[in-house]
Amino acid sequence: MRIAEPVEKLVAYVPGEQPKSKDVVKLNTNENPYPPSPECAKVLSGFDIDRLRRYPDPVFTQLRETVSRAWGVPAKSVFVGNGSDEILSLAAKAFVEDDERIGSLDPSYSLYKTLAAIRNVEFAPTALDADFRWNGKADGNPALFLLTNPNAPTGVCAKIDTIREFAATFPGVCLVDEAYADFSGQTAIGLAAGSSNIIVMRTLSKSYSLAGLRLGICIGPEDLIDALYKVKDSYNVDAVAQAVACAAIEDRAWMEKNTAKIKATRSRLTDALRAMGCDVPESGSNFVFARPARRAAAEIFDGLRRENIYVRYFPGERTGDRLRITVGTDEETDRLLAALARLDK
Amino acid sequence: MRIAEPVEKLVAYVPGEQPKSKDVVKLNTNENPYPPSPECAKVLSGFDIDRLRRYPDPVFTQLRETVSRAWGVPAKSVFVGNGSDEILSLAAKAFVEDDERIGSLDPSYSLYKTLAAIRNVEFAPTALDADFRWNGKADGNPALFLLTNPNAPTGVCAKIDTIREFAATFPGVCLVDEAYADFSGQTAIGLAAGSSNIIVMRTLSKSYSLAGLRLGICIGPEDLIDALYKVKDSYNVDAVAQAVACAAIEDRAWMEKNTAKIKATRSRLTDALRAMGCDVPESGSNFVFARPARRAAAEIFDGLRRENIYVRYFPGERTGDRLRITVGTDEETDRLLAALARLDK
Repeated sequence: MRIAEPVEKLVAYVPGEQPKSKDVVKLNTNENPYPPSPECAKVLSGFDIDRLRRYPDPVFTQLRETVSRAWGVPAKSVFVGNGSDEILSLAAKAFVEDDERIGSLDPSYSLYKTLAAIRNVEFAPTALDADFRWNGKADGNPALFLLTNPNAPTGVCAKIDTIREFAATFPGVCLVDEAYADFSGQTAIGLAAGSSNIIVMRTLSKSYSLAGLRLGICIGPEDLIDALYKVKDSYNVDAVAQAVACAAIEDRAWMEKNTAKIKATRSRLTDALRAMGCDVPESGSNFVFARPARRAAAEIFDGLRRENIYVRYFPGERTGDRLRITVGTDEETDRLLAALARLDK
Repeated sequence: MRIAEPVEKLVAYVPGEQPKSKDVVKLNTNENPYPPSPECAKVLSGFDIDRLRRYPDPVFTQLRETVSRAWGVPAKSVFVGNGSDEILSLAAKAFVEDDERIGSLDPSYSLYKTLAAIRNVEFAPTALDADFRWNGKADGNPALFLLTNPNAPTGVCAKIDTIREFAATFPGVCLVDEAYADFSGQTAIGLAAGSSNIIVMRTLSKSYSLAGLRLGICIGPEDLIDALYKVKDSYNVDAVAQAVACAAIEDRAWMEKNTAKIKATRSRLTDALRAMGCDVPESGSNFVFARPARRAAAEIFDGLRRENIYVRYFPGERTGDRLRITVGTDEETDRLLAALARLDK
């Protein structure tokens, strides 16, 4: 009775496991195998602790200016969240009425459905085709359409032109979740600020190796960005995270070097999996979505886990015959491939 | 049309100013004038940046165990938020149906009303008496009653017995916001875990001098705490904040030393203001809520600001004849008193 009914009924989103053992080959949550920029370490070690007495800048002035310079967008079109997760949750408040819907691709990031349940509105999926490609439409007339590009867990990319054409006639807000876009080399950032309904969301969790920091950034037309500022908590991003994020974004070369390594490993991993007979859609992200050649995905998931290799398995009609495998270091990739060769026969 | 109507209509909460100048005597946002524990600085400077590649612990295991040991509560009854603000926002989701109300004292923390507006539910105030004392009831049958104790902006304390008696018959959830309780020496923490409907909320922003870190903690019965876990973002508190918070909570002696200094200064400030003819209710917090002896509060607010002394002024029937003045260092307090002596005559 004291717990609201939609929350009582809610099945919480279960994030990928975070095992404490150091022996695990952890390819289950799309973390970056390479460390963040050494400039981030300098910010942490040199941080004046006395600054923490004071509240952080509620409107992230320095960080927005850094994003503005680095990504070529107006500072006024930038919003920052405590991870992309917070931006999604705020967007669900700001752009969706109680009787409206939240939509996304299907399959896509499984959190979106939970997000709609927490917001207590209907969820409207748009089915992808057999090759996980999007038809450029949003079914069920959603007020907020969450378009992950590259998509997760598939890794498949939609063309930027397709997004532009879709948004031009879509009456709601199109939030392009570009968590993995640095691994694809294409972005809708150029569309966002000048549009009336495109918000592009980025995270420092993947390409910038800062999942532990919780830093999401989005760019969009000013009126929509202003609405996010209205509904956010007063001080939603702490002073340390703001400072570390500035250092990370300014050291773009570090991110690009790591991203290039991951793309090279992804290419090698994709080729090796295909040579083993797995089906692997072309990935623009830091993971691949592989269908084993012979055995059931669930069986291989269990087998890998017994060998302390963690990947991600999503049961269900569209995803249950595949494994989502994060691209790790070359050494981790070799261990994974050796184990798969034993298990998938 | 794209922005949800309740958000379009929303008047955003305006936090106290964060001036960038170092010359300001900043007594406007109840920050601590003394730095955080040196143990926090050690955590920051020794933090292994490579840990930030990985997502943080989504359920704050180490921090909850630290709170459990330090405050004598079961770890399962502890929840952690990205500041108390996030806990308030999650409680508004978890404990309030769409057709129910959120209540609080009146006057109290002005964010609460905005919180109800963002949640798109009615706000139900319970008027305090002429001396800002609570009658032990909640008007308007709220599902969630936000009881700030000591209250802000008044500094006035309710007795713990009154809270226990109130909660025993109150059908909703009573969230006791104890942001300032370390300055009062009384707490309802002992009631929370064993109750069916009391959640006690603490922050590291005030007594622990960590406003810049964004760390709120609450303690309550397990079923209510579990509901907060269900509605939170997957990784709502970053790895750095979790580690720094552990160090701060373990160095309780540091917090108590600073708190004792602030209480001594508060006592001196209260006496001096009363000697000048100001009305000052007895404060259990790190601020006083003073009615000037001669001039209008708004006029003195402006005068202080011209002298680079920032205090807080809340227009309105119950609060507009007073100033909320944070207890700073002794030197800051002397500058404030000297300026007031010139202005309030």
